[in-house]
Amino acid sequence: MQDTSPEQVEHIVAAADRAAPTWAGRGRPERAAALRAVADRLDAAADDLVPIAIRETHLGEPRLRGELARTTFQLRLFAEVLVEGGYLDARVDHADPDWPMGARPDLRRTRIPYGPVVVFAASNFPFAFSVAGGDTASALAAGCPVIVKAHPGHPELSAATARVVNAALTDAGVFQLVYGDAAGVAALTHPLVKAAAFTGSIRGGRALFDLASARPEPIPFYGELGSVNPVFVTVAADAARGAAVAEGLVGSFTLGAGQFCTKPGLVLAPQGARLLAALADAALPPEAPLLNDRITAAYLHGQQRLRAHPEVRVIAEGDDPLAPSVLATTVTALLKDHEGLQGECFGPTVLVAEYTEEAQLLEVAGALAGQLTATLVADEDDPVAGALTAVLATTAGRLLWNQWPTGVSVSYAQQHGGPYPATTAGGTTSVGTAAIDRFTRPVAFQGFPESLLPAELREGSDVPRTVNGKQERP
Amino acid sequence: MQDTSPEQVEHIVAAADRAAPTWAGRGRPERAAALRAVADRLDAAADDLVPIAIRETHLGEPRLRGELARTTFQLRLFAEVLVEGGYLDARVDHADPDWPMGARPDLRRTRIPYGPVVVFAASNFPFAFSVAGGDTASALAAGCPVIVKAHPGHPELSAATARVVNAALTDAGVFQLVYGDAAGVAALTHPLVKAAAFTGSIRGGRALFDLASARPEPIPFYGELGSVNPVFVTVAADAARGAAVAEGLVGSFTLGAGQFCTKPGLVLAPQGARLLAALADAALPPEAPLLNDRITAAYLHGQQRLRAHPEVRVIAEGDDPLAPSVLATTVTALLKDHEGLQGECFGPTVLVAEYTEEAQLLEVAGALAGQLTATLVADEDDPVAGALTAVLATTAGRLLWNQWPTGVSVSYAQQHGGPYPATTAGGTTSVGTAAIDRFTRPVAFQGFPESLLPAELREGSDVPRTVNGKQERP
Repeated sequence: MQDTSPEQVEHIVAAADRAAPTWAGRGRPERAAALRAVADRLDAAADDLVPIAIRETHLGEPRLRGELARTTFQLRLFAEVLVEGGYLDARVDHADPDWPMGARPDLRRTRIPYGPVVVFAASNFPFAFSVAGGDTASALAAGCPVIVKAHPGHPELSAATARVVNAALTDAGVFQLVYGDAAGVAALTHPLVKAAAFTGSIRGGRALFDLASARPEPIPFYGELGSVNPVFVTVAADAARGAAVAEGLVGSFTLGAGQFCTKPGLVLAPQGARLLAALADAALPPEAPLLNDRITAAYLHGQQRLRAHPEVRVIAEGDDPLAPSVLATTVTALLKDHEGLQGECFGPTVLVAEYTEEAQLLEVAGALAGQLTATLVADEDDPVAGALTAVLATTAGRLLWNQWPTGVSVSYAQQHGGPYPATTAGGTTSVGTAAIDRFTRPVAFQGFPESLLPAELREGSDVPRTVNGKQERP
Repeated sequence: MQDTSPEQVEHIVAAADRAAPTWAGRGRPERAAALRAVADRLDAAADDLVPIAIRETHLGEPRLRGELARTTFQLRLFAEVLVEGGYLDARVDHADPDWPMGARPDLRRTRIPYGPVVVFAASNFPFAFSVAGGDTASALAAGCPVIVKAHPGHPELSAATARVVNAALTDAGVFQLVYGDAAGVAALTHPLVKAAAFTGSIRGGRALFDLASARPEPIPFYGELGSVNPVFVTVAADAARGAAVAEGLVGSFTLGAGQFCTKPGLVLAPQGARLLAALADAALPPEAPLLNDRITAAYLHGQQRLRAHPEVRVIAEGDDPLAPSVLATTVTALLKDHEGLQGECFGPTVLVAEYTEEAQLLEVAGALAGQLTATLVADEDDPVAGALTAVLATTAGRLLWNQWPTGVSVSYAQQHGGPYPATTAGGTTSVGTAAIDRFTRPVAFQGFPESLLPAELREGSDVPRTVNGKQERP
């Protein structure tokens, strides 16, 4: 695909800006119907889209069909969120002459869309975090026109997906696609663009975050960057079920050839752990091609660097350099070398750090950078469990208890986001229904007549509201 | 007061970091009780604090007593917010093997405090937006230790207020004060500080926002900067009640000598408006000293610059340069000179821009930068009212209908924040109960045993929750 020219970007952003009031002005049921229409058409186009995805990403058919199902489920879930209307956080304060700090006027607050949004698509989920993925679905649901910067890893799939989306959306300018880094930057820094979302590397995401923050009018940049997703295995858990833990870990770190942002990349295990012995003997899956040449090169470089580290030894590996590998080090080495040992190595590998006493788990938990997830493999009566949970809650966006982080359910309570560098906006999530909150901002109306209020703020509204501080159902 | 040294800042931040888990770990009722204790002690200290405030700020006693009452009301309102617990946005998804996108684990999500927060106090509200003001109250309520950077305009009041606050808070390190710009910057850029709030000028706020965004770990910076708070007067409204509008406007733009961030600084009125004639004849209040020398100098400079503008004429003024003034221009000039005519002039002055047709109201509304407030002086059947409301909602955080923006009620539905440069985080508010949201971030717990979950996520919790997507009351 040819890169989008600066002139084309200008036209595309202008079209998105023109579309913004129309799309925002369509009622919630209408936007919900449009999202469902996109989902229906994507489902119907599966036999066309999946083969392109296989060709461009090296991911297998079952995985890609599953991912497409996740994508259309997500669109339909946001349609449900729209109809329900709780995301508007509608609040009504009736006028109150006796309000203790002085007479209170009639004040009503709802949330409105930011305006045009740029979505930087990810490589590793060509459906669910790409053209019609979660960022697009939540921004469209919020009422924002979307400009997707296609990922170069699957350009044809991006074009084909965009055609399907646009066949379902009748308003011009609501959904558009651009190609090329320069086009992405031009869109991100355009004055008419009001927010951006990104899934990718720390380096790339930080560069874009810096551009978004340095604009004359800074805009929110929701970047999901990198995470090692540490796993903390207690002595008791290792003793009781080290072998089973090893099996679960292998399944998780090799899933999708380790190319998940939630891949467990670092495991804390007791010295001489059963887990480690079981990993040494484990039947690792065969090598699989990675998504693209750039990711392959980065993975091989990362492996080389780790294996050259004086405190790292190889526990398990295959003949092929892309075969899954298990490496090991010590907690002491881990804590000493933040740069070298605590970073993400995107691909089918895991680093196990052995500790000599469980108190070191707390030390590591407190020393790690921000994470998308952190996992406890522990028993309820483990003395360290409570303190470890408390520390990890300050480090990660999602904590798991004796489960693996690679499955990220799309639901109401999901949280996919954490302190930097896991994301650039740890107060938000890119998965789950709360993802829509990223693309709306509050507006209050003081003393307005019914006829000029947004529908959800009038009497007889159909959304949940907080009235004079008390939550009410419609 | 002496500036806080770099070594002292280091100690202060370390103490805040040590206090963070303790303060966060105190139950909501306990933190609520602490906030009420602060409020009670501040009320009891009114006779000590108000005279210092009068001396340091030139604001009058009734205003300052009212502002202190607002401050303690705010602390008690956040105590109420804490006890109610809705701000946690607690969500529970029970495990569901039949969840359409694949079996769903048990997922529970709540919000936890960010950690130590730096609050940059404002000059113009020495109580309500200063040491124990809304930013401090909402951050403490959220569970964050607070370091206030005192405003140099009222150093003794800051110290006295801090002593009262600390007499009520028993945990060391939860609330601390620093003096001097360098100390503020050192705290803001310290790795252990996790968020910041600011009220002040565009230039100062932007510089601090840039520092917060450029940190190795960027942190949220909630800056409330500047706003001209435009007022749009329709032809019909002017014809029907121009004189009364003039009276209301004078009251609003001269309140507190025009030193409010919500002061209406720009009025759009029909050419030859009754409003303008009434303003020319209005009895303006006498001059009043401004907050400090820096604000006085900036105001006089702004007035000089405006009056020197070839398209600006003086409608009303007093003998003293600090006497309230009314200036006028045309919409054509206003639209042509963004830099010269659309900016904030902090102090007792207003600029009236005459339009020749109502369609120009929409043009101006679309051209203005982000605003804290925008006001419509109009009738419900004014043909322009609907479109104007829609455009202004994209520009401002709060819209007013035939009311004045200078009163900012502290309530559930209040929104004090808008697109840049009104604030650096238009998705948030610094006034009203939602202000607490700025200082918490979501964390999800997957598959956790009851005993290790935060109380609000256990069965029988006492907070409103969303369970499997449906809102439930405790």
